Amino acid sequence: MSILVVGSVAYDTVATTRETRERQLGGSASFFSIATLGAAEVRCVGVVGDDFKQEDLDLLASRGADVSGIKRVAGKSFHWSGRYHDDMIERDTLATELGVFADFQPEIPESWRGSEYLFLANIHPSLQAHVLEAMSGPRLTALDTMNLWIETTPNELRTILGKVDVLLVNDGEARQLTGKRSLAHAAEAIRAMGPTRVIVKKGEHGALLFGTESVLAVPAIILDDVVDPTGAGDSFAGGFMRSLALSGADRSSDDTPYRQAMLDGTVTASFCPEGFSVEGLLGIDDAGYQKRMNTLRGMMVP
Amino acid sequence: MSILVVGSVAYDTVATTRETRERQLGGSASFFSIATLGAAEVRCVGVVGDDFKQEDLDLLASRGADVSGIKRVAGKSFHWSGRYHDDMIERDTLATELGVFADFQPEIPESWRGSEYLFLANIHPSLQAHVLEAMSGPRLTALDTMNLWIETTPNELRTILGKVDVLLVNDGEARQLTGKRSLAHAAEAIRAMGPTRVIVKKGEHGALLFGTESVLAVPAIILDDVVDPTGAGDSFAGGFMRSLALSGADRSSDDTPYRQAMLDGTVTASFCPEGFSVEGLLGIDDAGYQKRMNTLRGMMVP
Repeated sequence: MSILVVGSVAYDTVATTRETRERQLGGSASFFSIATLGAAEVRCVGVVGDDFKQEDLDLLASRGADVSGIKRVAGKSFHWSGRYHDDMIERDTLATELGVFADFQPEIPESWRGSEYLFLANIHPSLQAHVLEAMSGPRLTALDTMNLWIETTPNELRTILGKVDVLLVNDGEARQLTGKRSLAHAAEAIRAMGPTRVIVKKGEHGALLFGTESVLAVPAIILDDVVDPTGAGDSFAGGFMRSLALSGADRSSDDTPYRQAMLDGTVTASFCPEGFSVEGLLGIDDAGYQKRMNTLRGMMVP
Repeated sequence: MSILVVGSVAYDTVATTRETRERQLGGSASFFSIATLGAAEVRCVGVVGDDFKQEDLDLLASRGADVSGIKRVAGKSFHWSGRYHDDMIERDTLATELGVFADFQPEIPESWRGSEYLFLANIHPSLQAHVLEAMSGPRLTALDTMNLWIETTPNELRTILGKVDVLLVNDGEARQLTGKRSLAHAAEAIRAMGPTRVIVKKGEHGALLFGTESVLAVPAIILDDVVDPTGAGDSFAGGFMRSLALSGADRSSDDTPYRQAMLDGTVTASFCPEGFSVEGLLGIDDAGYQKRMNTLRGMMVP
C-alpha cells in the first residue's frame, strides 16, 4: 500500500519555558511521514530551499519515506517560529517566513499518481485541489486545513471539501467552518459539504470520529511531560492513515477500520509532544507502541 | 441505601445570549438530589432564607429527597447571578449574595448519622470536616471543592482531604491544588493527600477517573443544544453517588463499580444543560436514560 502526502517540509524554531530550539526539522509532511513508522510506502511531495540540510532529508528517507518528490529550489526553506505558554497548549506565532513555500506548486511524479491513499496536509485549498486532480482516483483522500483558509479562501475550501472522504480539523475550526456551536451539528454540516467522515481533534482532550454509522470519542493518552506539542496533529494523521492503509480500508468500508485508525492516530500522536521536533516519534518501538495501545484501550472500555 | 448530601440550596439568576432567568432553583444540594432520580434515600442538609418558596422544597421532596434537614431561617437565601459567554462554557459571576448561607452551620439529625454514603458538596472545608465528624463512619465519602478554598483555606482543605475517599474537581482545580501540570501527576499528588480515587471533570470534554487500579476517560455526550450548564457538575456527582449506592460499593471495592458510576454520572449530567435550572434533569425517564447510556457506550468501545 502506498500513501502520498503533500505538505510542508520546514524548519521550526520553538520556544518553551524550559528551552528554545532553533531551526529544527518540522512541517506537516515531515511529522506525517515519520508517524507512518515505515509501515507503508510513503511518498512525500514538498519543497525546500537551498538551506535545507541533506541530513534532514536523509532522516525522512531512513524512516521509509520516499523524498524524491521534495524539490529543492533556490531560496529559504519555510520557517515557523513560535513560543508556547506555560500550559504548553496556547502558543504565539513569532514569525512565519514562507520562503520557497510561497511559490510551492506541487508536482506529482507520474509513477505516484496511482497512490492508494492521499493525505492533503494543510496547504492552500487550490493546491490541494490541483494535487487531487493529478491523481488517478485514490482509494481514500483525507484533508487537513486551518483557520487561515476558512477565513480567506472559503470558496476554494468548499470546492476541495466536496471531493475528499475524510476531513481532519480541530474543534475551533469545525465550529468556524460551519458556524455551529454543537460539534454534532458542525460534523453534520461538514458531512453535507462532502466528506463522509469528520475527525475533530481536541489536543489533550482527545479526538472525535463522526463516522458513517457511529461516533467514537478517543481520549488523549495522559502524558507525564510535554516538551513540544508541535506536530502532534500531523502525527495523528500519519498514524491514522498508516492504520487505514494496513487494513486496506476504502471510502465504502464501515466504521470499524476508521475506529481502529483513531486509536492508532492517538497512540502515535502521544509520542510527539515528548520530544522536540520529531524526536518523540523517532523513539517509538513496537513494545512502547503496544503498551500505549493497551493503556488507551484500558482508559476507554466502558 | 441512603445518601446524605450537605451543600447549598439556592436561587440562581442565569443570563445567556438567548434568555435570562431570575431566581430559579439552584445550589449544589438541589442538583445533586434531583440527579439521584429517587433511586436511593437522599437526605439533604442545607439552609434557606424566609424568601425560599415552599414549592421549591416540595419539588425536591417530590423527587425523593428528604428535605427535613434543610433549615429555614430569617434572612435571604443564597443567590448567585452569572452571565454565560457565547460559547456557553465561560461565564462571569455578576453577584454572589451569601445571605443566610454565610452563617450556615450544618446540623446532622441524629437519625441521619448512620447514612451509608456522604457527599460533601462545595462548602467551606471546615464545615465539611464538621459534618464528617458528626457521621458514624459512612461507607464512602466523596468531596467537591473549588478554587476559592484552594486559595484561601489550604490547610483546612488538606485536613478534610485526608479523611475522604473520592475527590471530584475540575482540571483547573486539580492543577491548582497540586501545582502539577500533568493530570497524571496531579492525580497522584491528590491521592497522596488522602482520597483513594480522584475524578477530574472537564465539562464538554468529559471526565477522568483515577482509580486504584485503572484510569478511565469518559467523553461527554455531545449535545444538540446547551441552554444552561449551571449545575452539571453537581448532577454528575448525583448520578455517580446514586450508581455507587445502588451497587453497594464501598472504599475497598475494586474500580468496577466506580467505572460504571462514571458512566451514570456522565449520562445524568448530560440532561442538565438542556434546560434552565433543574428542568433538564426533571425530564429524565428510563427510556431516555438508557438511550443515552447506549450512545455513551457506543462512543467509547475501542
